[in-house]
Amino acid sequence: MDLTERTISRRDVYNGRILRLHVDQVSLPNGAVASREVADHPGGVGILALDDQRRVALVRQYRYAFSRVVTEIPAGKLEIGDGDPLAAAKRELREEMGATARSWQSLGELIPSPGCYGETLYLYLARELSFEAPAPDEDEFLEREWVPLEELLQRCVSGALCDAKTVAAVLKAVYLGI
Amino acid sequence: MDLTERTISRRDVYNGRILRLHVDQVSLPNGAVASREVADHPGGVGILALDDQRRVALVRQYRYAFSRVVTEIPAGKLEIGDGDPLAAAKRELREEMGATARSWQSLGELIPSPGCYGETLYLYLARELSFEAPAPDEDEFLEREWVPLEELLQRCVSGALCDAKTVAAVLKAVYLGI
Repeated sequence: MDLTERTISRRDVYNGRILRLHVDQVSLPNGAVASREVADHPGGVGILALDDQRRVALVRQYRYAFSRVVTEIPAGKLEIGDGDPLAAAKRELREEMGATARSWQSLGELIPSPGCYGETLYLYLARELSFEAPAPDEDEFLEREWVPLEELLQRCVSGALCDAKTVAAVLKAVYLGI
Repeated sequence: MDLTERTISRRDVYNGRILRLHVDQVSLPNGAVASREVADHPGGVGILALDDQRRVALVRQYRYAFSRVVTEIPAGKLEIGDGDPLAAAKRELREEMGATARSWQSLGELIPSPGCYGETLYLYLARELSFEAPAPDEDEFLEREWVPLEELLQRCVSGALCDAKTVAAVLKAVYLGI
């Protein structure tokens, strides 16, 4: 069966600093018409950075959409000129943790929420770290911590930590035998 | 450090069938002002349904935001009146797969994308299945498949399957020793 939904018309609702929202009329496989709400996002990266004591870099940030602090691996949006997402991963790890890695390995792509949110995340494993001073963005306030991989794994499995990219990156990396 | 960002003002941009977009001015921990774009979502459920041959239920759906078919575990939005997310999980599994489960177990919450997307997902493991005819929503076209858990695990780890809720649910369940 051809499941394709074809665009009939598009209404641009909002074009912001990060999000762009549009509402489209589409034709369904049976010819019926439906509307689709899409929040587009430039995409991003998440970095599982492992130090030589098998501790993982985490950041604690206030996430306004949830009115609370969320613990996550370092991450950030793709920016114009990044080209390869790996360039963004290197920048974010340096800015958020002050870390540079000699070893980079892809942990694959992640679609956080396929229904209405057009974001693709690129996950990386970063190892062989060296350090300088962090340089977070001006409007970015965060706390850094380094947590033993085994402890972090338990937090991901138990649901104590529920950020999707962190759960996916940690469990994938453990499964791959890092 | 108190990382809280406090709302100064809120501008409602869009109030749709699924998404609500607002752009807020907030005061940062250092007193500076920043803007925050938030796409709010009612939240949803994802169900890892395992049959007695250790096969997992998957649906293939056209995801308009990505212009392609995406393979995922059965899932759906919370609706008014669902109360407990488990009620939504039972409904979605019945509608999408025609399956009813006698055993339900929480696999925790997932925040797909904490930055700008206010969605929380509730993950469940469903077992001891029985079947009737599926009854998908009118504007929902999907293909169903049952894939051996071990094969699905490989697809999640390799990145061949990249839907976050599916990756998280499968890897958590495997780690928990189901």
